Amino acid sequence: MTVAKAVEQLLPGKSLVYFGDLARTPYGSKSPETICKYSRQDTEFLLNKGAKIIIIACNTAASVASDLLKAEFDVPIFEVISPAIEKALAVTVNSRIGVIGTRATIKSNIYETKIVEARQEAKVFSQPCPLLVPLVEEGWLDKRETKMIIRRYLHPLQHKGVDTLVLGCTHYPLLTHLIGPRIGRKVNVIDSSTAVADRVKRYLQDHPEVDNSLAAEGKSMYYVSDVTDAARLTAQRIFGRKLDLIQVDMEGI
Amino acid sequence: MTVAKAVEQLLPGKSLVYFGDLARTPYGSKSPETICKYSRQDTEFLLNKGAKIIIIACNTAASVASDLLKAEFDVPIFEVISPAIEKALAVTVNSRIGVIGTRATIKSNIYETKIVEARQEAKVFSQPCPLLVPLVEEGWLDKRETKMIIRRYLHPLQHKGVDTLVLGCTHYPLLTHLIGPRIGRKVNVIDSSTAVADRVKRYLQDHPEVDNSLAAEGKSMYYVSDVTDAARLTAQRIFGRKLDLIQVDMEGI
Repeated sequence: MTVAKAVEQLLPGKSLVYFGDLARTPYGSKSPETICKYSRQDTEFLLNKGAKIIIIACNTAASVASDLLKAEFDVPIFEVISPAIEKALAVTVNSRIGVIGTRATIKSNIYETKIVEARQEAKVFSQPCPLLVPLVEEGWLDKRETKMIIRRYLHPLQHKGVDTLVLGCTHYPLLTHLIGPRIGRKVNVIDSSTAVADRVKRYLQDHPEVDNSLAAEGKSMYYVSDVTDAARLTAQRIFGRKLDLIQVDMEGI
Repeated sequence: MTVAKAVEQLLPGKSLVYFGDLARTPYGSKSPETICKYSRQDTEFLLNKGAKIIIIACNTAASVASDLLKAEFDVPIFEVISPAIEKALAVTVNSRIGVIGTRATIKSNIYETKIVEARQEAKVFSQPCPLLVPLVEEGWLDKRETKMIIRRYLHPLQHKGVDTLVLGCTHYPLLTHLIGPRIGRKVNVIDSSTAVADRVKRYLQDHPEVDNSLAAEGKSMYYVSDVTDAARLTAQRIFGRKLDLIQVDMEGI
């Protein structure tokens, strides 16, 4: 939802087809095989609903399944990882970059691999933060326990001299106000949600034929595979308004 | 898994068919419709694997789906809630009973309804504790943050004068060492895992024909819909030995 919000803000004329797989979240603690299967189903769903370009708005799915989706589907596919890396490499001075994410994202090693591919001398320091997703989903955005857990997770990164920290999970932008001061005011904090929205905007500027195919498509639709009060609240918190969440059955597809 | 372990200890001669729906957990934050659908599939799976009696070893599934499963399937179906209530009513002196569980379990109101049904003058005080499942699954069983979160969750119960607290989630027995001292040494803490194992044992003593049909069935099988390192670790922690977890695809069923 943080990605959907960033896209809405940067590309106000475009209509979104959003799908949140709430019946099967969180992906971050599942195996690569399961994440790939779910990501493929999610993409098919969005294409069936008329999507012309796909944004994999989840670092876990992007880290594990984006190569597979790009190989299988013949549409432009964006993901949250490369744009965040590009932004991180653009702002880092000492090329020492921290990355935080779910267990699956960190275990995939994709950030380290891609960063070092792009800049051989870069040093990447990664830290899984598996409890941050449930804390965000509970709305514990300012609780003392959340601060302590963030302190514990960031502690190993604090003596590594990183000048840039990538928020490698689309839940984490809701915790920037705690993560930023804790990692240090001088550290650049990179939000993958806005990074991918930027990337899509530039792509559409360079590809007017795609841009035109998106125009005047009608209103945005927000599909979810499960509707809960917590999801409604989180949506309202992120979008600043009530969203009309439409429930769909993923397993019937 | 805490229920499987309790059954194994109380009924050492019987073989278990275990299924853990790790690809779609946690159930506790999902809607009743989704929980019912998954519970029905899980039951069909166990029956196909030769199960003769079913234990719904999850308070969330039991609270939302046990009536439905009992109506649809023609086998003895046990669940973790009634045995825990029976045990709580047997030990409480002042009939003031606390219940902690997931958001879905507490919202279902099943503990309060069933306790008051059995003893009209009883007072039930319920508290959802949604972060305890992820904390247990992370293995944070002795961390300071876990203690603080437990303190925060139990605080509203501490001035209610409860003399009995039901652990209404099969993850919570792994936190008894923190929950017990926090709620107070004089409060009876009821573990639904051992309560249901007790109940099954008594049932088999009263129904020798069912008991005999279970005998000499071969070794226990542990199926899961996703295999992760965290699941392997948790299994080892609970059983005190490595389990051979067999992965199955629930959506193909």
